[in-house]
Amino acid sequence: MASRNATSGAASSGRNGGIDSKTTRSPTSSFVRPLLTDLYQLTMAYAYWCSGRHEEHAVFDCFFRKNPFKGEYTHFAGLSEVIALLDSFEYTESDVAYLKTVMPNVKEGFFEWIATLDCSRVKVYALKEGSVAFPRIPLLRVEGPLAICQLLETTILNLTNFASLVMTNAARMRRAAGYDKTLLEFGLRRAQGPDGALSASRYAYYGGFDGTSNLMAGKTFGINAKGTHAHAFVCSYSSPDQIPNKQLNGVDFWELVNSHRKKNGWMHTNEGELAAFVAYALAFPHGFLALVDTYDTLQSGVPNFLAVALALQELGYKPLGIRLDSGDLAYLSRKARAMFQRVAQDHALPSFEKFIIVASNDINENVLNALNEQGHSIDAFGIGTNLVTCQAQPALGMVFKLVEVNGKPAVKLSNDFVKATLPSKKKAFRIVGREGKALLDVLMGENEASPEPGRRLLCRHPFIERKRVYVTPAAVIPLLECVWDGPNGGPTSPETTSEDVRKYASSQLKLVREDHLRSLNPTPYKVSVSDELYRYVHELWMDNVPIPDLG
Amino acid sequence: MASRNATSGAASSGRNGGIDSKTTRSPTSSFVRPLLTDLYQLTMAYAYWCSGRHEEHAVFDCFFRKNPFKGEYTHFAGLSEVIALLDSFEYTESDVAYLKTVMPNVKEGFFEWIATLDCSRVKVYALKEGSVAFPRIPLLRVEGPLAICQLLETTILNLTNFASLVMTNAARMRRAAGYDKTLLEFGLRRAQGPDGALSASRYAYYGGFDGTSNLMAGKTFGINAKGTHAHAFVCSYSSPDQIPNKQLNGVDFWELVNSHRKKNGWMHTNEGELAAFVAYALAFPHGFLALVDTYDTLQSGVPNFLAVALALQELGYKPLGIRLDSGDLAYLSRKARAMFQRVAQDHALPSFEKFIIVASNDINENVLNALNEQGHSIDAFGIGTNLVTCQAQPALGMVFKLVEVNGKPAVKLSNDFVKATLPSKKKAFRIVGREGKALLDVLMGENEASPEPGRRLLCRHPFIERKRVYVTPAAVIPLLECVWDGPNGGPTSPETTSEDVRKYASSQLKLVREDHLRSLNPTPYKVSVSDELYRYVHELWMDNVPIPDLG
Repeated sequence: MASRNATSGAASSGRNGGIDSKTTRSPTSSFVRPLLTDLYQLTMAYAYWCSGRHEEHAVFDCFFRKNPFKGEYTHFAGLSEVIALLDSFEYTESDVAYLKTVMPNVKEGFFEWIATLDCSRVKVYALKEGSVAFPRIPLLRVEGPLAICQLLETTILNLTNFASLVMTNAARMRRAAGYDKTLLEFGLRRAQGPDGALSASRYAYYGGFDGTSNLMAGKTFGINAKGTHAHAFVCSYSSPDQIPNKQLNGVDFWELVNSHRKKNGWMHTNEGELAAFVAYALAFPHGFLALVDTYDTLQSGVPNFLAVALALQELGYKPLGIRLDSGDLAYLSRKARAMFQRVAQDHALPSFEKFIIVASNDINENVLNALNEQGHSIDAFGIGTNLVTCQAQPALGMVFKLVEVNGKPAVKLSNDFVKATLPSKKKAFRIVGREGKALLDVLMGENEASPEPGRRLLCRHPFIERKRVYVTPAAVIPLLECVWDGPNGGPTSPETTSEDVRKYASSQLKLVREDHLRSLNPTPYKVSVSDELYRYVHELWMDNVPIPDLG
Repeated sequence: MASRNATSGAASSGRNGGIDSKTTRSPTSSFVRPLLTDLYQLTMAYAYWCSGRHEEHAVFDCFFRKNPFKGEYTHFAGLSEVIALLDSFEYTESDVAYLKTVMPNVKEGFFEWIATLDCSRVKVYALKEGSVAFPRIPLLRVEGPLAICQLLETTILNLTNFASLVMTNAARMRRAAGYDKTLLEFGLRRAQGPDGALSASRYAYYGGFDGTSNLMAGKTFGINAKGTHAHAFVCSYSSPDQIPNKQLNGVDFWELVNSHRKKNGWMHTNEGELAAFVAYALAFPHGFLALVDTYDTLQSGVPNFLAVALALQELGYKPLGIRLDSGDLAYLSRKARAMFQRVAQDHALPSFEKFIIVASNDINENVLNALNEQGHSIDAFGIGTNLVTCQAQPALGMVFKLVEVNGKPAVKLSNDFVKATLPSKKKAFRIVGREGKALLDVLMGENEASPEPGRRLLCRHPFIERKRVYVTPAAVIPLLECVWDGPNGGPTSPETTSEDVRKYASSQLKLVREDHLRSLNPTPYKVSVSDELYRYVHELWMDNVPIPDLG
């Protein structure tokens, strides 16, 4: 954890014990500090402090109520940033000075207490990062002094809500595109500012994307950076005179390209575009991939690409392919592939059939599904806006709710019944059947006997009385593990790598039945409670709902 | 601008000339550096460099093609961050080392050139921050060495796209809510990570919000921080025994509250909730505002609030009001107001009629309009998810297009005609009529004579031949002004404050006719081109479209 004398959360201060005893983990963004929270967390903390309740032992559950994207599953992400937040948690002098301006009439002793805070008395239990998660199962259970846990609420939600949403979005696009396609994240220009973009690159990679256009994400997270050129590059060329040195391997490359152009009857193409392709090939003879829709994809772009490709091939290089960025992508990709095939045949160059076709331009999960139906010849998709903004549903409603304080359950009802919270400290299990697939998740009280393989268990819908089911587990997977143990030095395991999370996420999906994962009308996955928890919770609710007096 | 020896964009290095000669402006996020860009900007820069074209003089237009939210106007924001980017633009040694790993087979000389770059040869013309803007009018025109301007593309779009979108969203919500209501941004927990949230707070404030819950935004941008307490606070209390010291001004406050409760027949309310309200009032006797929907808004929350309010009033304090966070907000607010009025009458306390009613819970522009239709008694709205994620349309399609290079127009067509770009360097004017309202915007070639008041002007639709209109300006407002003059030291004016932008935005809206601004089916605002520009552009396009040969 951060040394109390450090002036910021920078990764330099010492720490006692824990897994990596040398450095404090720091969040990726320098704005991820305790002040990245809502004012009401501080006003509540003060009210607790005034009642002397600020250090009472509390338990909070972080969960969501509904899967995003009309789907029936969600990936959980953002955990490593949460741990970094906990590890570096500290109000600086300047933070405290600011708080005093925002909270006048507040006793000085409160600010003195605030200035001493860290997360050494907090424990966090969580799903593994990348897990497949379902509604109402706690993704994180945060335990510790009431006011400190409360102060963590908004920052934790900020770090996990979007991370989980965009990872889920990416995973759904991966399924829709097919596991043999390349998926590239191109969203930097449309994301919610700089680290909206960085989060998107990172969590899209977790969800199964192969690379990003964003160099900062590439450098920060070690994700493959990918990209070719834009329309501007093509537009900037109007003639071969703009290429002073046309030599490649001692040959006039422009001449060579034009000889292929002539031989194949492609003299009607846009010459500026051809000059641009030649200039690009001269710079990247080993990595020639051309954007072909600046003037006209099939009339100009593809023939120009092929002329350059034939010339590169003749000089011993392996051209890569094309990118389509407008028009009917299914049709254009099939037509382009047909042109590749014809040239491959005519010139006895079988590799030309296999040119990569990259498609971009407003691609989303529905477009991917539609392209599959129409039939297409696309190998790679560049996806920006719809991935990073999660256009189909731009927020996941993750919440952070008090469920227990001083060993007593905290009850939260609401005019909207669906907003009610399951009180008390709970544990969660995934029950796996004989086929090796998850049957349901079950929540139970912390002190109940855990489910066991082979022992029949009554599981109940948390709200609807008549919905009950018996299940006999073939295997039982406990879902929550301690990821932050403040009293014992903090993080309980080394930092996970992106590759770890990707692999884990993919293994998690294999545990889930196909009909829960499908895009159209998926089957809801059962999230249940034990009979004991059901009775306990409903009794508590009834005790706390006032009975209105009609008339 | 950043000194070439500085190792980062931090605000400490010296600069020659310019308005503020002491410090370099730094972007808010430490990730806003030249590497926050797409890889293809670098590959294109290298291809230009190989052709010796990297320092040719280029002009790029940054614009959008369609207003967001089915509306007919957009606010432009993000400019001050763009200027900070230009002012601190520099690839660090570590950036260059990273680029070498991403771009193998690239000549060393290119990286030497990259390491020398800054924006001292770049000029930027832009709309004022906060301007009302319309499709196809350049928001920014960036001029300078081809490869350097190209390298700026993605970062500029990242800084302006979301900023403009969320400012526009906020401005639309402000119009829908009414100018007499208080609007608070509550979106930190649902935004795209930390500075997604910070950007949202800042640009929502620009658009007319009054405050934010986000303390980091409050501290960073000087925005009012607002908030009360959450459900967790209420849930954490089950009895008055949890308040060890119940004294306020020497009185047992719990007893006093309960005497009012009894007198008014409110004994059926939830006692834990009442204890929470009392604890909160003891901490904030001057600022008591209670969240009333934890158990039951009208049966428990409002009567409990009123009991505490009566007690506070008796001790000389002025209680503030309530927050509703679930249920039918129109109905509940009217009912709560009626209860306030009854108590105000019964107790001869007219101020009780005026208690603030804050509403939150999934509010968006449509909900605001619906509440107005239904009739409500809400004074302030806390808006989170729908504001910060711009749920109704989570991305603005701002683009950055090459329009001229070495004095020659750059033509970009496309299989989608609407994606075509208006080539050549252009100037833009807003034409104001005799009523003092904007009639249309017009783009013309840089060298055409500017429009003048009283002189009739032929304006044409940029794409549709038959759409023409004569206009006689009462006033002419030039839209683009030089905001960054690299050769003369950089920024051309001091940094604007948030208050400047808010005021300017509000004055801009007054120039626009009501029917363009309305929420339902607004009238499109005309964005036109001069007759000369029309002819020039269409001739260029025809020269560049290949004519396909059918069959």
